[in-house]
Amino acid sequence: MYTKDTQIRIRYGETDQMGYVYYGRYAEFYEIGRTELIRASGLTYRDLEERGIMMPVTRLEIKYIRPIGYDELITIRTSLKKMPTAKITFHYQILNEKGEIANEASCDLVFTNSETRRPVRPPKELLETLEPYFT
Amino acid sequence: MYTKDTQIRIRYGETDQMGYVYYGRYAEFYEIGRTELIRASGLTYRDLEERGIMMPVTRLEIKYIRPIGYDELITIRTSLKKMPTAKITFHYQILNEKGEIANEASCDLVFTNSETRRPVRPPKELLETLEPYFT
Amino acid sequence: MYTKDTQIRIRYGETDQMGYVYYGRYAEFYEIGRTELIRASGLTYRDLEERGIMMPVTRLEIKYIRPIGYDELITIRTSLKKMPTAKITFHYQILNEKGEIANEASCDLVFTNSETRRPVRPPKELLETLEPYFT
Amino acid sequence: MYTKDTQIRIRYGETDQMGYVYYGRYAEFYEIGRTELIRASGLTYRDLEERGIMMPVTRLEIKYIRPIGYDELITIRTSLKKMPTAKITFHYQILNEKGEIANEASCDLVFTNSETRRPVRPPKELLETLEPYFT
Repeated sequence: MYTKDTQIRIRYGETDQMGYVYYGRYAEFYEIGRTELIRASGLTYRDLEERGIMMPVTRLEIKYIRPIGYDELITIRTSLKKMPTAKITFHYQILNEKGEIANEASCDLVFTNSETRRPVRPPKELLETLEPYFT
Repeated sequence: MYTKDTQIRIRYGETDQMGYVYYGRYAEFYEIGRTELIRASGLTYRDLEERGIMMPVTRLEIKYIRPIGYDELITIRTSLKKMPTAKITFHYQILNEKGEIANEASCDLVFTNSETRRPVRPPKELLETLEPYFT
Repeated sequence: MYTKDTQIRIRYGETDQMGYVYYGRYAEFYEIGRTELIRASGLTYRDLEERGIMMPVTRLEIKYIRPIGYDELITIRTSLKKMPTAKITFHYQILNEKGEIANEASCDLVFTNSETRRPVRPPKELLETLEPYFT
Repeated sequence: MYTKDTQIRIRYGETDQMGYVYYGRYAEFYEIGRTELIRASGLTYRDLEERGIMMPVTRLEIKYIRPIGYDELITIRTSLKKMPTAKITFHYQILNEKGEIANEASCDLVFTNSETRRPVRPPKELLETLEPYFT
């Protein structure tokens, strides 16, 4: 397993009138989590796009366990549980300020050639970084 | 089954630099779908909140099948496949401008007393509207 | 003056925990207003982009007069007060469900060649539609 | 003058299909800027709300000077140029990753009693923190 933690603070604009984070805003937190996991592997999602690889999301599943409030400093725990192929599956836990699991999710993305729109292999740097964690 | 179609047009701000609707914005479309389904049953989600019922989301699952572009007039097809209890499950299909299924989702919400934060039965009006469709 | 009214209903995700529309979400309403004004002139913003014209926003000013609540059916009143040059200035009033002015804004955009990033003249169709209103 | 710098990284979901940050997302950056300026003064906006003070925005003006791209690490420079009364005016500069001014804004908020909805004096802690900077 390969895991990366990232902390962010909840913005006012992320709450709704129920007084907690709007259920649709979590997708941005997962995006931040995988962006930082990829950055930790030595390349950036920005690099990927410049090389002509884009990563559309094909599946997202979320379990909302506890609400999260404005100004909470949350931890986005992002994990890979197996080596990516053309498809990569990210697993997420969102921890609230007390360290409790407030939310769990998983998400599939596909490494895609921006021109042909065909699936492609993940970039070598990413595979090399990940390999030691999965053998 | 009880189904309600609602049409909306994609906003520029809903796209991202991949040139399609951002994967996190679909949650708002589902919210619109269930709001209009409830309205069609003769009461509004606004009424529910005024009566002290709130409906937090506990689960969301999305399959992204085709990308959707700016300014497309999409159809949010929202269905109930069984009578709600304290939990209500909405099923969604998003149809693109050509009528193709671009996206499928399902979502659980819980009728909750705003004070006690305990699950409660769905409002009578909603049950009465739905009953004929499930017998 | 050339004016176009568009109605939309406030989404739950557009509110914040103060119980009203988040101040940052109005920009999307103005975007909808000008999109529909342009559509009423016989072409679409989507067409413009396909012809290689993009319209970055260079200035936005908003006065928040009354809060707007969830599920309100608001009117976005979008006006041009003079003929556009490379710069076009849209004026907005947001009317709440009671027809009261809840919000006023104005916004400058620049017709820009997507390749050269230089200002360009507005498209002929738009000018022809607008001319009768400004002479 | 009292100034506070805060850094954030641009999220993918904050871009639009023009390839830059959507013009409506800057409002969240300003919100972050003033939240951190208030925190630096020794209290939090969350505290304020718990004491029954809310701060609706009454005016926002933005000049968009340079576009900002995905994954840029931007600086939100938030300043007070005079002591707040019931009204407080925040001034903003958004610096891009190269340190260039990409965006300027100012924003008025009103300290408001959540019950009576009447303007109130700013909290003592804030005034005490600010006083040395304005004499």
